[in-house]
Amino acid sequence: MKVKVAINGYGTIGKRVADAVRLQEDMEVVGVTKTKPDFEARLAVERGYKLYVAIPENVNRFEEAGIEISGTINDLLAECDVVVDCSPGKVGASNKPLYEKAGVKAIFQGGEKKDVAEVSFSTLANYDAAIGKDFVRVVSCNTTGLSRLLATVRRAGNIRKVRATMLRRVVDPKEDKKGLVNGIMPDPVRLPSHHGPDVQTVMPDINIITTAFKVPTTLMHVHAVSIEMPEVNADDVLAILENEPRLMLVSAEEGFTSTARIIEYARELRMRYDLFENVIWKESVAYNDGELFVTQAIHQESIVVPENVDAIRAMFELADKEESIRKTNKSLGIA
Amino acid sequence: MKVKVAINGYGTIGKRVADAVRLQEDMEVVGVTKTKPDFEARLAVERGYKLYVAIPENVNRFEEAGIEISGTINDLLAECDVVVDCSPGKVGASNKPLYEKAGVKAIFQGGEKKDVAEVSFSTLANYDAAIGKDFVRVVSCNTTGLSRLLATVRRAGNIRKVRATMLRRVVDPKEDKKGLVNGIMPDPVRLPSHHGPDVQTVMPDINIITTAFKVPTTLMHVHAVSIEMPEVNADDVLAILENEPRLMLVSAEEGFTSTARIIEYARELRMRYDLFENVIWKESVAYNDGELFVTQAIHQESIVVPENVDAIRAMFELADKEESIRKTNKSLGIA
Amino acid sequence: MKVKVAINGYGTIGKRVADAVRLQEDMEVVGVTKTKPDFEARLAVERGYKLYVAIPENVNRFEEAGIEISGTINDLLAECDVVVDCSPGKVGASNKPLYEKAGVKAIFQGGEKKDVAEVSFSTLANYDAAIGKDFVRVVSCNTTGLSRLLATVRRAGNIRKVRATMLRRVVDPKEDKKGLVNGIMPDPVRLPSHHGPDVQTVMPDINIITTAFKVPTTLMHVHAVSIEMPEVNADDVLAILENEPRLMLVSAEEGFTSTARIIEYARELRMRYDLFENVIWKESVAYNDGELFVTQAIHQESIVVPENVDAIRAMFELADKEESIRKTNKSLGIA
Amino acid sequence: MKVKVAINGYGTIGKRVADAVRLQEDMEVVGVTKTKPDFEARLAVERGYKLYVAIPENVNRFEEAGIEISGTINDLLAECDVVVDCSPGKVGASNKPLYEKAGVKAIFQGGEKKDVAEVSFSTLANYDAAIGKDFVRVVSCNTTGLSRLLATVRRAGNIRKVRATMLRRVVDPKEDKKGLVNGIMPDPVRLPSHHGPDVQTVMPDINIITTAFKVPTTLMHVHAVSIEMPEVNADDVLAILENEPRLMLVSAEEGFTSTARIIEYARELRMRYDLFENVIWKESVAYNDGELFVTQAIHQESIVVPENVDAIRAMFELADKEESIRKTNKSLGIA
Repeated sequence: MKVKVAINGYGTIGKRVADAVRLQEDMEVVGVTKTKPDFEARLAVERGYKLYVAIPENVNRFEEAGIEISGTINDLLAECDVVVDCSPGKVGASNKPLYEKAGVKAIFQGGEKKDVAEVSFSTLANYDAAIGKDFVRVVSCNTTGLSRLLATVRRAGNIRKVRATMLRRVVDPKEDKKGLVNGIMPDPVRLPSHHGPDVQTVMPDINIITTAFKVPTTLMHVHAVSIEMPEVNADDVLAILENEPRLMLVSAEEGFTSTARIIEYARELRMRYDLFENVIWKESVAYNDGELFVTQAIHQESIVVPENVDAIRAMFELADKEESIRKTNKSLGIA
Repeated sequence: MKVKVAINGYGTIGKRVADAVRLQEDMEVVGVTKTKPDFEARLAVERGYKLYVAIPENVNRFEEAGIEISGTINDLLAECDVVVDCSPGKVGASNKPLYEKAGVKAIFQGGEKKDVAEVSFSTLANYDAAIGKDFVRVVSCNTTGLSRLLATVRRAGNIRKVRATMLRRVVDPKEDKKGLVNGIMPDPVRLPSHHGPDVQTVMPDINIITTAFKVPTTLMHVHAVSIEMPEVNADDVLAILENEPRLMLVSAEEGFTSTARIIEYARELRMRYDLFENVIWKESVAYNDGELFVTQAIHQESIVVPENVDAIRAMFELADKEESIRKTNKSLGIA
Repeated sequence: MKVKVAINGYGTIGKRVADAVRLQEDMEVVGVTKTKPDFEARLAVERGYKLYVAIPENVNRFEEAGIEISGTINDLLAECDVVVDCSPGKVGASNKPLYEKAGVKAIFQGGEKKDVAEVSFSTLANYDAAIGKDFVRVVSCNTTGLSRLLATVRRAGNIRKVRATMLRRVVDPKEDKKGLVNGIMPDPVRLPSHHGPDVQTVMPDINIITTAFKVPTTLMHVHAVSIEMPEVNADDVLAILENEPRLMLVSAEEGFTSTARIIEYARELRMRYDLFENVIWKESVAYNDGELFVTQAIHQESIVVPENVDAIRAMFELADKEESIRKTNKSLGIA
Repeated sequence: MKVKVAINGYGTIGKRVADAVRLQEDMEVVGVTKTKPDFEARLAVERGYKLYVAIPENVNRFEEAGIEISGTINDLLAECDVVVDCSPGKVGASNKPLYEKAGVKAIFQGGEKKDVAEVSFSTLANYDAAIGKDFVRVVSCNTTGLSRLLATVRRAGNIRKVRATMLRRVVDPKEDKKGLVNGIMPDPVRLPSHHGPDVQTVMPDINIITTAFKVPTTLMHVHAVSIEMPEVNADDVLAILENEPRLMLVSAEEGFTSTARIIEYARELRMRYDLFENVIWKESVAYNDGELFVTQAIHQESIVVPENVDAIRAMFELADKEESIRKTNKSLGIA
């Protein structure tokens, strides 16, 4: 029996999680929701997803637009074992009572506060913490990127302290009303940023401090990370990083001079140019005066997709960590 | 016997034409070239293309990078019936003597001057003009976009005069050294722009005047077109436009509010988010005081791909216009 | 006795109008308002403007911020003869009852609908229409740019029809939350845009149709204009344009290749890099097949400043059109 | 007798240094150079600078453009005591033999390598090192920004180690051909960046490591700096920073939420919106776990202007450090 998964919010994250779940043999998508009858709603139906209306009073609008629906969010919750909430940040928490009332498990995204769930989750960092849980929060794209990196680096030695500066894409590519057109915005201005404490929700023993900025690009975040740790050889670390499938190493020498070029490559690899892996510049990995330096790029739209799939497995005890990683990676083409 | 096609320049246009040729039953890719051993070169090999070095003195660099090559451009020319020159603008013309010496037919792109070839080409406008020719120039992305639109609109009535303002994306997405970061550039400042006369290379009877600007975006060009013609009903024109597969109609009401949203949709449709079709905003089609207005978006990276395939068919007399269009459209998913 | 002018909204437009009014000998600024105690509020006080709080319940916030205020908007209205409403679009109309109750004249900006006032105004087009009026609306930056151009061009011959495509800067430079980061947005998608009818509020006899787009830049708008008119010599038109002080002619040959370069020049000329003049590319002026072509750039933040000053003179019958233009131009350095 | 100063290269830096020198009582501008007769050349003449042609064979082009010149660079060198070389990066070094031959002192900018001069210079860090020297290099905008900050912070305690991530504006505002339109570029990819060693040219005892990125904005650089030092109170540090005139403190609470807003403020303060001061966000100053954090914005076009003036004073022994700073600050409005 496959786990029945509902996707509440077939948007940037939701449509990717839906497609990923569909590729698994131990789970299935029983339906997805949309609030408005836009082209994403139409696409959902064309792809064979049963479509439910997230805001029941909008049912008429879907009918007028000629988009076939299968009911409302309430109908969908009656059909599923778990709902992956992919609402915009902060909306997820307000949906929780609905999920509790329906008696279904739920996964929330990193835009929600940590207390929305029993546990915050990032596969490489703390898969086991989600085993059997009812409410799990998959941490945000930036936190996922940092957690994966740190969970891998610590295989090379103890981490004493982490400092990271995050250059965040200001909006996703599809956004056309919000943004910063010309400028740099410290966000937050008051230091440190929330990313450090957020990493600690999945790796509580890591001493980390972060600063963050918004810059006028849509493609990827970039992290400048330094990790205080006992002396290591940069090549040894590189070998460890290269061995972790959820990290992808690229080289400026081969033409990867910017996030623009990384995305150009991604357009060749996967639909939607998704990059489920942290992308690490090989040349950036250096050990200097007690610190390991790493520069990585994070595709904010897709990086958390594998973690959402793993979270479902942990919550339903479908597989242990290694098996879930293996299955998720294989199905998504993460090599 | 399939026509043997060489792609000289496996870059933005070349890699797309290669993949499109590969999908045809009446032609095959015998090899592609690269000047440098970058990630695109590696990808070409991974996809099973035989890779040749475009600049023979660079052979060593490919060997050092561990990228398998099958020879140089000269070796490739000995293997093919036709070469599709996808060099950067102006370089194509300098390659022509090479092609003549090798005794192969050649297709050039719109970045070359018109006299590089016997005929300038755009399928809907003048397929027959390329039949049996040795040297054909597929017109540029902007000219292809205009020519397709006009060739279709004139099914609704005589075109008296065309005025178009072109908002051009300043660079392609993979470019990270050139551009205009904040500003608008009339290009050219001296009017009119070359796009009008370029349309006339494929539709000599069209009276057209164009102005053009570069704006700081990478995704698509946008054309504001007005067409003086005898009174028509906008809905009738819409029906004609909708009936032409190389045009795709979208609606702001469905969420297509900008080129950002069109590309978001394209990411769901095709690898590399290619849009082989002109994308026309339905709501923009209006007839007012003697003029038909149309606003269209053109994906500069992929729009000429179908025309390159059709050009090969015409040059080798593999099919008549209707059959070539049908085969190209079907293979590329143009519905 | 000088006319006592209040500025309601010391923001992008308001601060410029305040400084311009201050330079006139026949009017004076009796006070300006702000809604929030931000750095612009502090600057207003530092420059010697009496500061009033636009939203009375916010008085405490100014006191806490240590910014000296002279009262609220109501106190200011009791002191002035005329208020220049520089609120954000649509807010102006909601302020009108306040102005009527206070018995003061008022100028609104182009973000308001035309029926907010007795007359829409643009100096070169219809100065006399505002003489003695109580409520006047100065048309928007784009409409001002078009009206000045057309009012000047028609000195060269009858205008039969005008077509204009407007490339609009998506947000002002100080904006850091809204925008379009990468893309082009037809705005509106449904043609024509409102700019044509808006020109007709000040030049009712002009036959004009416009389309408009938002592009990701902050500096200036650019207009591609074509004007059907009896045959003229482009050099004669240039001479007429050069003779009108509110138009500035620049040449790409001298380095003015884009709005980025125009602003670089403006930074040398005036504080805030204000360009009170339409900036017209000399090389763009051409007469072709019955149409005059002109490309112009419009500095959206400052272009309407002279018109606001002129409007005050007309409303209080301080000067006739020629005299007002002369005084405004001289005081603002428009040569 | 005033020191006679020539400016070689009246561009982004040169025009600002010329204006600043002109404001000093102990030096004068004897002439400026341009390579091309563009609008900046015309402006130089309009402002009363004697104009010399930097590339002698271009004299004709100036005459054709009707721009009055006073000779070539060689004539200018015969008139001056010192030349401030404001050529584009790397060109300055090639000019040095010319200066040596003419027997004049010279100042180079930070785009040159350090061995172009006897000493690298940044006022607060090492004014005395330039006393009496013939060839001095004023360090780059980023290095000046870091050096000023560190020279000030060390008044509060010993600096053990500095880590800085630099978010660099990709091009200056006037640039319209180069840039990165959508993306983030690690520059360099291989760590660390040259900025650390460059700081050490003026503060050799500082242990500093830096990483740097280009982001698609034109306005300012931003530096995320952490400084390991003995425990300090953030408010005490703030008081020290506020007391140094070459640093300007701003607050997000007052509306300074991004570099876009800082520049909006600068447009009110000075022509060309020049910010000669490091701009430091008050809220960013924090002491955490052994490190002081500071976020600052640096106006790349103007930040080195005061240092160029000071360098002249040091080279000609016109004043000691305190007096030079006082005179430069007063004349430029640095309070």
